[in-house]
Amino acid sequence: MTIQAWWQQPAAAVSESFRQQALARQNQLTKPPGALGQLEQVAVQLAALQQRVKPAVQNPQLVVFAGDHGVVAQGVSAFPQAVTVAMLSNFVAGGAAVAVLARLHGIGLSVVNCGTVTPCEHLAGVIQCPVMPGTQDFSQQPAMSPAQAQQALRIGAEQVERLHAEGCDLFMAGEMGIGNTSAASCLAALLLQQDVVALTGPGTGVQGAALSHKQQVLAASVARAQPLVSSPLQALEQVGGLELAAMCGAFMRAAQLGIPVLVDGFIATASALLAVQLNPGVREWLLFGHRSAEPGHAALLQALAAEPLIQLGMRLGEGSGAAVAYGVVQQALALHNGMATFAEAGIG
Amino acid sequence: MTIQAWWQQPAAAVSESFRQQALARQNQLTKPPGALGQLEQVAVQLAALQQRVKPAVQNPQLVVFAGDHGVVAQGVSAFPQAVTVAMLSNFVAGGAAVAVLARLHGIGLSVVNCGTVTPCEHLAGVIQCPVMPGTQDFSQQPAMSPAQAQQALRIGAEQVERLHAEGCDLFMAGEMGIGNTSAASCLAALLLQQDVVALTGPGTGVQGAALSHKQQVLAASVARAQPLVSSPLQALEQVGGLELAAMCGAFMRAAQLGIPVLVDGFIATASALLAVQLNPGVREWLLFGHRSAEPGHAALLQALAAEPLIQLGMRLGEGSGAAVAYGVVQQALALHNGMATFAEAGIG
Repeated sequence: MTIQAWWQQPAAAVSESFRQQALARQNQLTKPPGALGQLEQVAVQLAALQQRVKPAVQNPQLVVFAGDHGVVAQGVSAFPQAVTVAMLSNFVAGGAAVAVLARLHGIGLSVVNCGTVTPCEHLAGVIQCPVMPGTQDFSQQPAMSPAQAQQALRIGAEQVERLHAEGCDLFMAGEMGIGNTSAASCLAALLLQQDVVALTGPGTGVQGAALSHKQQVLAASVARAQPLVSSPLQALEQVGGLELAAMCGAFMRAAQLGIPVLVDGFIATASALLAVQLNPGVREWLLFGHRSAEPGHAALLQALAAEPLIQLGMRLGEGSGAAVAYGVVQQALALHNGMATFAEAGIG
Repeated sequence: MTIQAWWQQPAAAVSESFRQQALARQNQLTKPPGALGQLEQVAVQLAALQQRVKPAVQNPQLVVFAGDHGVVAQGVSAFPQAVTVAMLSNFVAGGAAVAVLARLHGIGLSVVNCGTVTPCEHLAGVIQCPVMPGTQDFSQQPAMSPAQAQQALRIGAEQVERLHAEGCDLFMAGEMGIGNTSAASCLAALLLQQDVVALTGPGTGVQGAALSHKQQVLAASVARAQPLVSSPLQALEQVGGLELAAMCGAFMRAAQLGIPVLVDGFIATASALLAVQLNPGVREWLLFGHRSAEPGHAALLQALAAEPLIQLGMRLGEGSGAAVAYGVVQQALALHNGMATFAEAGIG
């Protein structure tokens, strides 16, 4: 008898009936059919997920998962590793981009330590779930053990379970971790079976010779890992990150608990692809927030057949793109629920 | 002595010093420089326009200008002309898309009748400034006389003067008028000196043979008008619309009074190009809200070197794209003003 892992449990059901009813409503609103473009599609998708003609989001929540990356020893990042925890302090103090956007939109914000190098127990407001003090240097060895990977997946699942109990009806995840565009690029390369160099960009600001060096390190890392990888989970263990694992676990658990997900940029989308490869039913629960300036994002979005709402040249992470896109979701729902039908307006 | 027209008065001055100070602030915020993409650029531009390091929008206003078009006699629209006034009723009742978005974002909404065929004096809340009961059929004769064009330009200017006196600090314009994508396409063709057929799209839903017919009618209209046009103002008179003229007048007056403008989609951008051709200093005061699905919009945006904030496949008009983009402006300002600097966060 094979024991099924928790993430293999099916995602919650989606209602085709409510999708059709919501689409019918859109076609009765006082506008030409389709004239609101993606704003219509978002509202219709949320109707199918929430199983009601007039979907609503009352309790949006965003969790930033943080972790460090041993591969930064190879000089792949523009920032020192201590910045990971310095930014956690900035998140809970309210000065980071995602904190500003969460405040603007009334999005609940949680910050979770999945494993930083610098201790951060002193930071009030940071939820402490460290698996290890940063991953191993994946250019030399696996980033984490199978047990550590499963522990990190559970961090995300548990956060979503907590938020579900509190009534969360839209989930967003962000990440913080110096070096995590490197992890995301390598994970994407293994999951997509594409060349990592084409998927590797500046991250937070690596350019010129430093970018070439980053690409060389990542190409060598993928070459090291590839023979050892025969499943998506093994890709995570070999080249992933703790916060990437936590996001993946959160996405899978949200889909199981029936919470729509608004996915952030490049790194979150790498986690989303991993989630969908582990459990294809998760895909239906994912809305995509923004198209990052990071070059690997396009390949991930294509593999997921995803059309993000926003394309503003952002490349910050933290969940900031999802938080910006949440504004568009609010607009889509306000229009879907608040516009008059032709009959109500006495037209036609 | 040549008497200068009101719209030839210079636009308000823009502060390069505050632009540089705002840019310096962006580069001190807790993120890699440029990582917020266009959100940074919007905040910096508004700093230059508002002459302060931390720009703010407290009193955003959107005016929908309405007018009818004689060319609909040629069968260029999917909707009957009576829909123009029916939609005015829907604007003031709050059921139209732009009304829903204005409510969501706290944007003041005004509705102005520049000249409808169906009377609408009975609609409480519609500001009455009719120039004529719709334009003439521009496939056969000029849409309006020079005097009528100047009267329509003044409608927009007067609305902006009213809003300026009330403290408006961001101006948006929308339009309503069955047939007005036809007017905008012909106006764009004359101002850009491009083929009108390539600039003509479905508008509110003309497709197939009906679209071919619309393109034929517009090609003939431009061919009729072209020999009579030797200035932007003559293009307006020949093939424009009353609401297009009013938007153009509003944009020019806003620039003169120092009110930043957030431009809507295809039709509003045709008016914006006319405004910039009449007074090039206006350009600096224009932000662009969204990229419409209407094919002619790309050519207009290119001519204005404009990069809209949003691309959601919208093609509704009414100012709805500007209202959606206003949400992004709010986010850009919240980030610019609310994020911590590296020094404030104790990083670096």
